[in-house]
Amino acid sequence: MIYFDNAATTRPNGRAVERAFEYLQDKFFNPSALYQEGLNVKNDLKQAREFLISCISNVQDTALVFTSCGSEANNQTLFSFAKRGNCIISAGEHSAIHETANELKNRGIELRIAPLNPDGTVNQEALLKLVDDKTGLVSLIHVNNETGSINDINSLAAAVKKINPKTVFHSDGVQAFGKISYQMGAAVDAYSVSAHKIGGIKGVGGLFIKKKLYNVLKPYIYGGGQENGKRSGTENTFQIKQFQYAAEDKFKTLREDLQKLHELREWLWNALDKTAFTRISTPSGSPYILTVSVPKTRGEVLLHMLNDRGVLVGNGSACSSNAKNRFSRVILACGIDENTADGIIRISFSNQTTREEVETGAKILNECALELKKRMNL
Amino acid sequence: MIYFDNAATTRPNGRAVERAFEYLQDKFFNPSALYQEGLNVKNDLKQAREFLISCISNVQDTALVFTSCGSEANNQTLFSFAKRGNCIISAGEHSAIHETANELKNRGIELRIAPLNPDGTVNQEALLKLVDDKTGLVSLIHVNNETGSINDINSLAAAVKKINPKTVFHSDGVQAFGKISYQMGAAVDAYSVSAHKIGGIKGVGGLFIKKKLYNVLKPYIYGGGQENGKRSGTENTFQIKQFQYAAEDKFKTLREDLQKLHELREWLWNALDKTAFTRISTPSGSPYILTVSVPKTRGEVLLHMLNDRGVLVGNGSACSSNAKNRFSRVILACGIDENTADGIIRISFSNQTTREEVETGAKILNECALELKKRMNL
Repeated sequence: MIYFDNAATTRPNGRAVERAFEYLQDKFFNPSALYQEGLNVKNDLKQAREFLISCISNVQDTALVFTSCGSEANNQTLFSFAKRGNCIISAGEHSAIHETANELKNRGIELRIAPLNPDGTVNQEALLKLVDDKTGLVSLIHVNNETGSINDINSLAAAVKKINPKTVFHSDGVQAFGKISYQMGAAVDAYSVSAHKIGGIKGVGGLFIKKKLYNVLKPYIYGGGQENGKRSGTENTFQIKQFQYAAEDKFKTLREDLQKLHELREWLWNALDKTAFTRISTPSGSPYILTVSVPKTRGEVLLHMLNDRGVLVGNGSACSSNAKNRFSRVILACGIDENTADGIIRISFSNQTTREEVETGAKILNECALELKKRMNL
Repeated sequence: MIYFDNAATTRPNGRAVERAFEYLQDKFFNPSALYQEGLNVKNDLKQAREFLISCISNVQDTALVFTSCGSEANNQTLFSFAKRGNCIISAGEHSAIHETANELKNRGIELRIAPLNPDGTVNQEALLKLVDDKTGLVSLIHVNNETGSINDINSLAAAVKKINPKTVFHSDGVQAFGKISYQMGAAVDAYSVSAHKIGGIKGVGGLFIKKKLYNVLKPYIYGGGQENGKRSGTENTFQIKQFQYAAEDKFKTLREDLQKLHELREWLWNALDKTAFTRISTPSGSPYILTVSVPKTRGEVLLHMLNDRGVLVGNGSACSSNAKNRFSRVILACGIDENTADGIIRISFSNQTTREEVETGAKILNECALELKKRMNL
């Protein structure tokens, strides 16, 4: 099997699972318990929190609320800060922002959507025209999950705040955290992440938030007051610690992973048959993602043909597999025509991806794409 | 170590962890992925769902939404169904209902609180007086986490519906599921559970909901549309499967566990020194919980003394350890005086609790309580 769907989820880091395993055994205690064993686990969570903050910011300025997933972190941010006036997102947001923002719209918040450039990044000029003194929140995705396009969120945030310093700036960093080099800029207030995109386990995420805004962050799940009152529910100690350990490993090799995957991605693209494939992801995007299309075919058909040959790829966004829409709204927002949008598959890597996988994968991708075109008389 | 804090969390069932471990390894796929490996995992989740539903209801009538914890299930229910008119809870609710209901109150919903009987159950007569044609939701805890008191929620629900058939009836079943014999009655619409109270892992829970109400259940986390649109966020496959396996084991021995723990609890109570201890939990409550008090002392002090001797007990509700209130609102609502409320500890069992632990535990409990009384000249 060649696994090319790491943007959907990665194989959990086994070493990190092993290290965290004690939280399923002798350290199973409830971190809210008052006896020493509970306090110890609470302290272990504190270490996880501080380590993860140190990856993209510092504990003096930034707090971290553990959530059950990136989607929850996004929901908490939007429902907490987009309370009045208008809320701005981009046309390139993940469903966890897009759908939540639409729910806000249903509740009477004015929703403004910034258009994308052809390379999938947010059009800065158009974005800034949307910002005014009634803009409560701007939320822009950091690395797009469908194209790999990277928004320069630090500078976008600074530009937004120049117009309205009171606007809260949030970014969905789920496809960026631990993958691309990043430090939270002064103007970025909140940042959502997910463990399972970098060797963590499905079931834990987090919301980084600047301390100056921490007090006004509203809880989204009410109850026993865990996470300093910001997120109730007994803490997922095992997965939080495994997230810490997976991040320790991932951040250690972040730069060399970037270099290696940049080479692998370009190698793969060069090996793909240009009579079949059109490139969607730009070279300046995250090297973890190479989205391509075989125009006038259905990406899903190619996906199943590849599946039969042992190559697993995504269809743009696994997260929206339940959606009824045939075309990805994000891909169309890049100005890509429907014939091309229809034929899209997403090839996504991890730092475990090998040259051999890419070589064999390229061969199978070419064979399947040409076979599909032949079947369809293209 | 003698672990008597199983109502806070249980040690994960190791056999269930082992069985589910493949979801951290070769079955790590995203269940929303369209290739066969993803579909297989999706199908495995379906099996987990159907098994868990079969434990307390049937798949013809009842659906199950997997959540990240019992608290999330409670939040989803309240924010989904208590939209107008009044909402009724009892004075014995867990914080995950109590705090959420207070947030509803902040948002303009009228909150009505049904008082408790001295044994910790809901006062049915007083409850029914609160129900009227504007009652949108009634939520009553099944087994109280601080006292073990059991509400007969099937009959309470039926009585509520007799007054207002349109009222949605929900119960927080976190301390009941897999512990006491129960089948969802016709009048019970929704039921929250948590995995980690019966050998599952902290980080997964669920909301059982009758199919006739399923369509009007609102999502609480918006996004990619997982869980049939009712709960977005990539599914916590490992913990969901481990929950299934832990529940398979627990439900198999549910009746014999009840018998065994009833005997152990009464043995323990009989062995406790009555010059020190007052019993709070009534014999008719869940045998998993024995709450006692050493009046005029602080339960927390006794908890730490016991901790030094290797016995771990709870202080009523681990979930509210962050609360500022000295006395438990639930305990006071049972009509217990402040001197007694102050001295409360909660001893809670699992089906792993042994006679030897109870015997040694009783000895240490007595020694510590008498020592504490002596220190305080009581």
